[in-house]
Amino acid sequence: MQAGSCGPCFTLEIRVKYADTDKMQYVYYGRYYEYFEAARNEMLREIGFEYKQLEALGVMLPVVTSHADYSIPARYDDLLVIHTKVRALENVRITIGYEVTRKHESKVLATGFTIHAFINKQGRPVRPPNEFKDALAKAGIK
Amino acid sequence: MQAGSCGPCFTLEIRVKYADTDKMQYVYYGRYYEYFEAARNEMLREIGFEYKQLEALGVMLPVVTSHADYSIPARYDDLLVIHTKVRALENVRITIGYEVTRKHESKVLATGFTIHAFINKQGRPVRPPNEFKDALAKAGIK
Amino acid sequence: MQAGSCGPCFTLEIRVKYADTDKMQYVYYGRYYEYFEAARNEMLREIGFEYKQLEALGVMLPVVTSHADYSIPARYDDLLVIHTKVRALENVRITIGYEVTRKHESKVLATGFTIHAFINKQGRPVRPPNEFKDALAKAGIK
Amino acid sequence: MQAGSCGPCFTLEIRVKYADTDKMQYVYYGRYYEYFEAARNEMLREIGFEYKQLEALGVMLPVVTSHADYSIPARYDDLLVIHTKVRALENVRITIGYEVTRKHESKVLATGFTIHAFINKQGRPVRPPNEFKDALAKAGIK
Repeated sequence: MQAGSCGPCFTLEIRVKYADTDKMQYVYYGRYYEYFEAARNEMLREIGFEYKQLEALGVMLPVVTSHADYSIPARYDDLLVIHTKVRALENVRITIGYEVTRKHESKVLATGFTIHAFINKQGRPVRPPNEFKDALAKAGIK
Repeated sequence: MQAGSCGPCFTLEIRVKYADTDKMQYVYYGRYYEYFEAARNEMLREIGFEYKQLEALGVMLPVVTSHADYSIPARYDDLLVIHTKVRALENVRITIGYEVTRKHESKVLATGFTIHAFINKQGRPVRPPNEFKDALAKAGIK
Repeated sequence: MQAGSCGPCFTLEIRVKYADTDKMQYVYYGRYYEYFEAARNEMLREIGFEYKQLEALGVMLPVVTSHADYSIPARYDDLLVIHTKVRALENVRITIGYEVTRKHESKVLATGFTIHAFINKQGRPVRPPNEFKDALAKAGIK
Repeated sequence: MQAGSCGPCFTLEIRVKYADTDKMQYVYYGRYYEYFEAARNEMLREIGFEYKQLEALGVMLPVVTSHADYSIPARYDDLLVIHTKVRALENVRITIGYEVTRKHESKVLATGFTIHAFINKQGRPVRPPNEFKDALAKAGIK
């Protein structure tokens, strides 16, 4: 996954707030996971299948694994771009990848991924709804 | 409400994390409201009526007003004490006051209050359950 | 201050994330203060005097008072609009007011204000820089 | 690393706040990283070498990698125990592992690790100070 050249890749711009920084002057490492969440929500919206629609079908997508690698600090008031794509759609899981740059820059500040399980209201793993798979397929994601 | 000399007053110690600070080196102003929440939870627990018990009775306590005044910055790794007390128990509302000091110090860093409405599951205002009022009375709060 | 009809009023749209909500299904009361921060940053940017420029002049604007009143809960995925305006520019202080609505709706979910002190690097109160006052005046704020 | 039986392992208790939960009723996945931060701060304090002392020596420990696996949701008001240990002290890096249980329970809710780089004020990688290595050695960590 590369900023600027990623297949069906979605982007979200986020302005760094004071609330996101810590006394080291940089964005707090745990805050990136909020950026990732906002970015995958917008990706699903652009794909045409909002996360709320999944919930309406009784399916939730809790995170089972989260991971981030930080190489260059982001700072207050930076206008970040979160580049997001579906990395894998398996049996009962989906893996989403993220890459963070500053706007109009190609240097990657951080990368990460989250793995989500499709579960029903009883908490049991289920296959993703067909409507969801269809929306992904239409967006060029298999 | 004065630190060290407040009627039936409850205290919670909180260690300031990096996550709580911002690039100005101080605790972010919005974080105090999380400290306040933790402190009022512990107050209710000590009074003998946990917030969860209220919820089990179908009563919730959403915040309708929140307020804080900041005079001295709190910093990373400070061991704070949140002094908490019930300021008023009215018809369908409760007002809780907070005062923040460093441990073993009397200087007040910040003060604040939250006003909560008692509501039922339909979102309608209700009077506090008698069990709750009894617990408060036993703790010397009228 | 009224949504839709506020003098020199600035707006910022914010999409509610999972991270912003709590188990009561609504936006956590303390999160509004992050929305307020983002909104006042954007207001300053639109006025043509970014907060970073103030810092570059050695002036900081810590919050001395924060206040919010919550009337209607905001929920996950709501597209909120934060309406922001300068309410008062006094000696060494500035008061900023906020009003939260959903997009394309006029019902006000929450209102609030923050009071900030102009301080220098030694933490002493100072008058706002002339450049700052000029920028505000140009934007119709006295 | 196993709860209850981990070599020189340190523990921190954390009560889950409303602020930590999201509308799925569980602790938000990104919040675990704040718990991890609090836990490693306390570990360093117990080892006898606070993070602040490192900073006083001009050394900082930014996170270069963070990772968490979530198996059982934590809920509001749970009293969690974060079991923390140093997994590896390499050249210019330290890896810290975390395991989350409820108090008096052995079931593991989540595990994770963070990798930190020792850097100086110019942002260059440096070896950990001898005082730091000595403190770790005294605590039985090599």
